[in-house]
Amino acid sequence: MNRVILLKKRPVGKPTLHDFEFTSAAIPVPLTGHVLLKTLYVSVDPYLRGRMNDSKSYIPPFEIGKPIQSGIIATVIDSKQTEFRKGDFVSGILDWKEYQVSDGNGLTKVDPKASPLSSYLGILGMTGLTAFLGLTEIGVPEKGETLVVSGAAGAVGSVVGQIGKIMGCHVVGITGTDVKAGLLKSKFKFDHAINYKTSPDLKEAVRKSCPGGVDIYFDNVGGEISDAVLANINKYARLPVCGAISQYNDMKTPVGPRVQPILLTKSATMRGFIVSDFSAKFPAAIKQLAVWLREGKLTYVETIVEGFENIPQAFLDLFDGKNEGKMIVKI
Amino acid sequence: MNRVILLKKRPVGKPTLHDFEFTSAAIPVPLTGHVLLKTLYVSVDPYLRGRMNDSKSYIPPFEIGKPIQSGIIATVIDSKQTEFRKGDFVSGILDWKEYQVSDGNGLTKVDPKASPLSSYLGILGMTGLTAFLGLTEIGVPEKGETLVVSGAAGAVGSVVGQIGKIMGCHVVGITGTDVKAGLLKSKFKFDHAINYKTSPDLKEAVRKSCPGGVDIYFDNVGGEISDAVLANINKYARLPVCGAISQYNDMKTPVGPRVQPILLTKSATMRGFIVSDFSAKFPAAIKQLAVWLREGKLTYVETIVEGFENIPQAFLDLFDGKNEGKMIVKI
Repeated sequence: MNRVILLKKRPVGKPTLHDFEFTSAAIPVPLTGHVLLKTLYVSVDPYLRGRMNDSKSYIPPFEIGKPIQSGIIATVIDSKQTEFRKGDFVSGILDWKEYQVSDGNGLTKVDPKASPLSSYLGILGMTGLTAFLGLTEIGVPEKGETLVVSGAAGAVGSVVGQIGKIMGCHVVGITGTDVKAGLLKSKFKFDHAINYKTSPDLKEAVRKSCPGGVDIYFDNVGGEISDAVLANINKYARLPVCGAISQYNDMKTPVGPRVQPILLTKSATMRGFIVSDFSAKFPAAIKQLAVWLREGKLTYVETIVEGFENIPQAFLDLFDGKNEGKMIVKI
Repeated sequence: MNRVILLKKRPVGKPTLHDFEFTSAAIPVPLTGHVLLKTLYVSVDPYLRGRMNDSKSYIPPFEIGKPIQSGIIATVIDSKQTEFRKGDFVSGILDWKEYQVSDGNGLTKVDPKASPLSSYLGILGMTGLTAFLGLTEIGVPEKGETLVVSGAAGAVGSVVGQIGKIMGCHVVGITGTDVKAGLLKSKFKFDHAINYKTSPDLKEAVRKSCPGGVDIYFDNVGGEISDAVLANINKYARLPVCGAISQYNDMKTPVGPRVQPILLTKSATMRGFIVSDFSAKFPAAIKQLAVWLREGKLTYVETIVEGFENIPQAFLDLFDGKNEGKMIVKI
């Protein structure tokens, strides 16, 4: 049997299990030039929420009744071509299916001897690239500057903070539980960690933990957390906008303090991005990340959920902050 | 007699004449190394409102009981130094006084034979520099792109639009009266002009006048006008934030739709600036502006008010959009 997960209907506000549909299909047979893949690890990511809406975004929306797609690590179990052979491991944006065929387009070979397979969905995949390129291309950290990261214990945030430390920044992370705050300091070596849920005055908490003001704000969450950081930015601050998880499920246009007056008085730059904006720099970035990983300068955590049937719930759990680091489903 | 205008108290909300105080002093005598200046033209600018607040901004606040300062053209009527001689014309950030002494620091000689004296406060001064450098350094216009300018009939806006045309852009201006909208098209050669006060749906009006979407939004005003433009930006849009005149007199933090989700889905860049951020590029920029002016590719309008006693009212009139182009007081 080959289980498949479809988008049943477009979520209204926060997604629920009812928005997904499980179905099954035959295991396909690869034609000439194709490979048959068996799914091993599935990445669930906040950005997928955007693709569930019927609106133009940076990538086309998922279609109702069609499989959802995300980053997947698979193994080649049958091959009718020469580039990818039986036994190879690959990563790619693939369907939420246990088995699928591919013409090889968009697949990248990954090496389980060099790094654990799941890491190619995280620190050596889109997560690591997003953190590295968003921080270095937009944040442009300089030694001695102060970097604040929101969603800091998440997959991207935890890498951003570590790279900030490697580059000599004072690094402050904002997260939503004391356990995660502890993890930021103990495992990821952030200088300070703020639990926004227990801070009576977040603006003041940011001010205290950033005595020199905020030079770079790597924004994964948006909303009121970002308002508190913006109130503390320095002249010429850079603000990469990587995500807005606090707003993805909003049903009305979110409102908040206007940012233009702050950007104006601070000559500050706020720039949204998606990792593919920097695709020309992927090979060099992956090389650098792998070096730091090997040298022990970078570390990562994963929240691994087991079972194909648990993919939708793992995705939903992202919006309740149930993951530490990268959320991955092992099949 | 030497009339002087002081900041009497910090305005609460919209400034009034009661926030200013007229006083008089003796005409000073220049010491060795100094010059005595007679004020000829005074620039009044929206950004001065920010300096009237007691808050840290890009330049220090005016002090209560001290003269207000702005861009001024003066003539040297007595000189005890060699760089600036009697009869020279100079521009600089000077006090709102009929006569004042200076050590020459910050003064620039201007040539009334090359261009009218008042133009050195506008198109060949801070106004022209702000327009040129904000547009070229942050907007980075490319031929065929669409540029939207708010506050388009103002001093900076009218120059931005013309430079956009020189650079091959489709240029749309937003302004607040039909007369100004007419001026944008007839005198400044904008492709379209929108009167936001008579547009029932500004977002739709921008959409219609920008069939290819908005690549650059040069923002002088902030607020709901900017919301309408942001709803129409293209992927990789650039948004120089030059001013926020609609918010300068707000007594509470202005709120509006959050921009981060839009910047994120469009990989767009919003950047605040003040012209001095680009001071290294002033000489080249002034040279280019002078060439365009001489070639007839650039034109400008001024609203000239006469009389030292009318400086405060001319400043207040900016917030009611009573100026077309640069607002200047002739003494």
